[in-house]
Formats: sequence, C-alpha cells, structure tokens
Amino acid sequence: MARNLARILRGCGSLVPFMKTPARPPRSSSSSIPVRTLVEMLPSLFSSKPRDFSLPNSSWGEEMMRLYEHYNGHTETEGEENQERKWNRLPSYNRSLKYAAGGVYLSKLIQSKARLFTRNIRDPGAAFEYVLFIDKEKEKCVCIFQAGHLLEGPPGHVHGGAIATMIDTVTGTHASAISAPVLTANLNIDYRSPIPLGSTVLIESTLEKTEGRKLFISCKVTSTDGSKRHTDATALFVSVSIGHLLKG
Amino acid sequence: MARNLARILRGCGSLVPFMKTPARPPRSSSSSIPVRTLVEMLPSLFSSKPRDFSLPNSSWGEEMMRLYEHYNGHTETEGEENQERKWNRLPSYNRSLKYAAGGVYLSKLIQSKARLFTRNIRDPGAAFEYVLFIDKEKEKCVCIFQAGHLLEGPPGHVHGGAIATMIDTVTGTHASAISAPVLTANLNIDYRSPIPLGSTVLIESTLEKTEGRKLFISCKVTSTDGSKRHTDATALFVSVSIGHLLKG
Repeated sequence: MARNLARILRGCGSLVPFMKTPARPPRSSSSSIPVRTLVEMLPSLFSSKPRDFSLPNSSWGEEMMRLYEHYNGHTETEGEENQERKWNRLPSYNRSLKYAAGGVYLSKLIQSKARLFTRNIRDPGAAFEYVLFIDKEKEKCVCIFQAGHLLEGPPGHVHGGAIATMIDTVTGTHASAISAPVLTANLNIDYRSPIPLGSTVLIESTLEKTEGRKLFISCKVTSTDGSKRHTDATALFVSVSIGHLLKG
Repeated sequence: MARNLARILRGCGSLVPFMKTPARPPRSSSSSIPVRTLVEMLPSLFSSKPRDFSLPNSSWGEEMMRLYEHYNGHTETEGEENQERKWNRLPSYNRSLKYAAGGVYLSKLIQSKARLFTRNIRDPGAAFEYVLFIDKEKEKCVCIFQAGHLLEGPPGHVHGGAIATMIDTVTGTHASAISAPVLTANLNIDYRSPIPLGSTVLIESTLEKTEGRKLFISCKVTSTDGSKRHTDATALFVSVSIGHLLKG
C-alpha cells in the first residue's frame, strides 16, 4: 500500500503524453546507425515532456481563438468595485499518472492504456476542445469549449452527458486548484437550452463556499457573448487523500 | 422549416451506420466489371442496415456476457407480489438521423460526421460498452455497462462525466421509450463510491411519475451483485416535438 502510494506520487511528478509507439527501424539498417546518433534520437522518441492539449491547434475556430487570446495572460477590470482579475491558463494532459498500480487497476493492460476521458480522441476538433483559465485568487475559473461532431446527443446538439462532463471537468479542476486531490460528490445540472454541435461556449465556475473538506462550486454555460444561458449547475467536491482512491 | 422536418422524419426511419468509405476501384479495372456485378455489389457497399452496438463483441468480459445472457429475453419473477418481468433488449446505433439539415447544424461537414457521443470510438472495449433492457410495462430499464480504459477520471477510476453520460443515456432512453422525443431538463447525481476502470456495473432506472410533458426518473449504479452502491441520481425529462429542436 505504502509502496503503491509512493509510486503514484512519483507518477504525479512525471506526466506522460500519449506517445505513438515509435516505428521500429528495419533490422538490416539498425546496425548501420552509429551509437551516438541512436542516443541523440532517444530524447525525441521517448520524450517525457507531455503534450499540453489546452494550446491552440488547427481545429480551433475563430471564436475559440479570439477568446483564447482575450483570456490568455489577460488582466481585466471587473464590476462596480473595479476589481482587477488576472487570468492564468491551466495546462491539460491526456493522462494524470504514469504509475497508478496495485488495487486501483484491474489489469496492467488497462493501466498502460488508460487515458483521460476528455482527451481520449486524437483527431483535433472532433470531440472536446477546451482551455481553462483561473484567476489569481482562485475564486473563478473560465473555460472556452468548442464542441466537436463526435459529441452528439439530440440531433445536431451536444449530448447532455458531454455537457455534464465539461461541467465536472471545469468545476473539478477549479476545486483541485484550491484543494487537490478532490472527488466529485454531487452534480446538479439544469439544462435550459441545447448547445448546437460545432459551437463554442463559455463555462464559468465560481467558488461559493468551503466547509471543512467540502467545496461548493456553482457553474453556468453560456453563449460566448453571455446573452444565452445554456446550462446552470452546482457541484460539491470533497478533498481526499490519494491513498483513499487506492482502497478502490 | 416544414421541409427540414420532413427530411428529419424520413431520416428517423433510415438509421445509418458509420460506414467506412468504400475503396474506389482503380480506374483501369472499373471498365472490366460487368454492370450487373456492380449493381449486385451496391447493397453491400452502401448498406442501409445500421450496426447494432448493443450486441456482444470480443471485448465483452465474462461478467458482461453472463449478465447479457441473464437479461436477454428473460422473464423473471420479482418481489413479494411474484410479479413477472420480461426484459427486452433495446438496439443502439452510433447516429440517430441520416438527414438533420437546416438550422440544426452549423455546417454540412459537421452534419455528415456527427456521431452519438457514447458510440464515437471504434475500438471495441476502449470506451462505453453497454446494452439496455426495458420491461414490457416500461416501468424499469436496466443497463449492463463495461467501462473501458479511455474513460479515466480519478486515477484508475471512471470519470464523473462518463458516469453522468451513462445515467443520462439510460434514463433518457427510458424516457424516450415512454414518450419520444425528450430533452434532459435536470440531472442530479450523488457520487457515492468511485467505479474502477475496466469493471462492469449495473445501471437501473425507474419511472417515478409523469406530470403533463414531464417525466421523473430515478437511477442507481451498483456493482453487478447489487452489494455496492456507486451512484444515485434523479433525472427530469421533458417531451418535445422534433420541430422544437430545429429552432436551435
């Protein structure tokens, strides 16, 4: 148990991207590659630097790019109190741990292939494209979300489960930034207006209060100009020890 | 608008699978294929018979198969009243409509590529493997769900959003069977115990009441022997006309 925990915690520090298995060079030619060249190739073949999925890619539409540039490193003056709010982008990877062993996984096979649900499709723009920003005081998070064609529920619109997934992701990331790690205890979601497939929306989360290990967060999904309210939600998270998860 | 609706309704009757684009024969050889052979080939190349994803495949584990065989066409005697309950399997496709045109989709490109969120990954066993059964009176639905490695949230466990997605799917399918089409109005989910990645669980939904266009459904996710309660939820659906969705 303690050994597993140590492995997990080590894993936390070394996030690993979803690497393509490097093509094996043909046996006949491998002997002709100088050892020095092979060693120089290693860092690129087995890079430990994870891919950050919350950076712009070619699938991001105009609205997504405009909002990304708006929030990225942006300081804005807000409300009647003229409060300044500085937004910081949060990186996003497709797996959280290199080694989560023991009782957590049913098999080594599952462990090696596990990928974060929201980042499990390689095709850019096909599913969840999103980037999160958090303010310095960690009171608010804002997420720009572009919904791809693989997220369909009602004809032409985003699946209720995909919206719930983004709400869980935004509020959960927010809660984790305040008190990591956390587990979702409750999600209560009012679906007010369907989100057209392919559109970009804003997801904003606000920390309402904390009570001991509990974090209460509210969340809304709106059109990017704020004029249309798509979804309202509240979320309750409980901060836990990583050991708690290992108990299965 | 009326024309779009007519196209959608026609689409409803002809569910279309996610077909691989058939390889184009080389130009040089096409002239040598007799016309009759080409015509005979058409049905297999452009089959309109959709693939039913709720049938067993090689990725289904022992527990999934055992439960599938238990519920499939099964009549069971239940409770103190000795009520008989006959379960009927519901088919499941990866898209609901062939033609949902007009204002619903932002572009023809999105329309042609749109896929149901829960069936958007081709690799069997990698994501959502599930099959739904409904009883003859439509009072209850039961779903056997095997959670694949691409659904990870907390290390080694299923993402809260993926659980919400399955709850929305099971309760929504249940509501649709009673009063199609419906839209999700509210989901309220209590996450009690995390679900290990790779495991098979039972999702049961019960119709609590109907009020006009509203359907109130409760839902629970348990271990397959019923001993462990993973998740409790309530869901509210509102029956709508297909035209309502087209207003987008």
